[in-house]
Amino acid sequence: MTSSRTEHDHPILPQILARRSVRRFADRPVEREKLLACVDAARLAPSAENSQPSRFILIDDPAVKKAFGEKAFSGVYRATRWTLDAPALVVLAAKPDFIANRLGRLIQGTPFWLVDIGIAGEHFVLQAQSMGLGTCWIGWFSSRKAGRFLRLPPGVRAAMVLAVGYPAKGWTPGPLRRLDNEAFFSWNAWKK
Amino acid sequence: MTSSRTEHDHPILPQILARRSVRRFADRPVEREKLLACVDAARLAPSAENSQPSRFILIDDPAVKKAFGEKAFSGVYRATRWTLDAPALVVLAAKPDFIANRLGRLIQGTPFWLVDIGIAGEHFVLQAQSMGLGTCWIGWFSSRKAGRFLRLPPGVRAAMVLAVGYPAKGWTPGPLRRLDNEAFFSWNAWKK
Repeated sequence: MTSSRTEHDHPILPQILARRSVRRFADRPVEREKLLACVDAARLAPSAENSQPSRFILIDDPAVKKAFGEKAFSGVYRATRWTLDAPALVVLAAKPDFIANRLGRLIQGTPFWLVDIGIAGEHFVLQAQSMGLGTCWIGWFSSRKAGRFLRLPPGVRAAMVLAVGYPAKGWTPGPLRRLDNEAFFSWNAWKK
Repeated sequence: MTSSRTEHDHPILPQILARRSVRRFADRPVEREKLLACVDAARLAPSAENSQPSRFILIDDPAVKKAFGEKAFSGVYRATRWTLDAPALVVLAAKPDFIANRLGRLIQGTPFWLVDIGIAGEHFVLQAQSMGLGTCWIGWFSSRKAGRFLRLPPGVRAAMVLAVGYPAKGWTPGPLRRLDNEAFFSWNAWKK
């Protein structure tokens, strides 16, 4: 068991305050050992009934990235083609299992695997942040064309993409535009 | 701008390795300032198009918690009624906006607000972890009855619940049962 000192000496809030979505990247590859640390953080994430629906595909080969992008960021999705400037892309695929997702969804209504993708992906993002890497969540891409390009098997869906790289020289974090506390949360009742 | 020293001196991985879902809690209230730090972490989370769909309701009043639980954890949802042993519950409600979610979903197919709930909730979880608090994600509850109890306005849905508290005395973290790297991720192609 980790000592309480080890557990509590690493507050998360400084990382969260420092994190920004990065859309301008340095022309510098990302070391695979750093990407692997981020993958580890994501792999250890919790999920509904420990169903572990997420599967990560890391694209850092420039030719694969280009070919992937020509499919995934085509047509109405051209708006996010800037993503290809990132030295690495992560495709967050999901393989929803039967109990937690089909059966559960039938009764309860929530596709938990999408929550799980958010949790696992954000573990990746925060670990990347803590190592000086920038990331940006991308939802605006053709899931169908991405899946076809990667030859995902039936039942596996390309859900989200993360762009990853060192921030461009001269990039500085802007302000975090967020709801204030009063709009975001309330105690023991829906706010009036 | 934070110096790179500040940014990179707080690795996330130790927290992620130490995190477990906690289902046995000490009979000890959680300080509101700690809950507020967790709320801050969640509030600052990224979201699709910065649409910020999440709204957090913190229930730490024992009478409210009991009344909420009698609705939310009734019928087929009795299996998660143990959640009421936690001194605090967080209801993660979502208010999906039009551009990022209705319009986006129509074309792209992904209800991004569920990914965003996962991201924001996990910020809460990791901040809680870093302050010695235990949490457990709960998806198995009646969203309809929870929403009715809290009088959520139309268009706002109770998406997930977090149980929060100090782990019970004698509670020790078990092993993290997770896919190995080979099953979880691959480089530049779907694994064979």
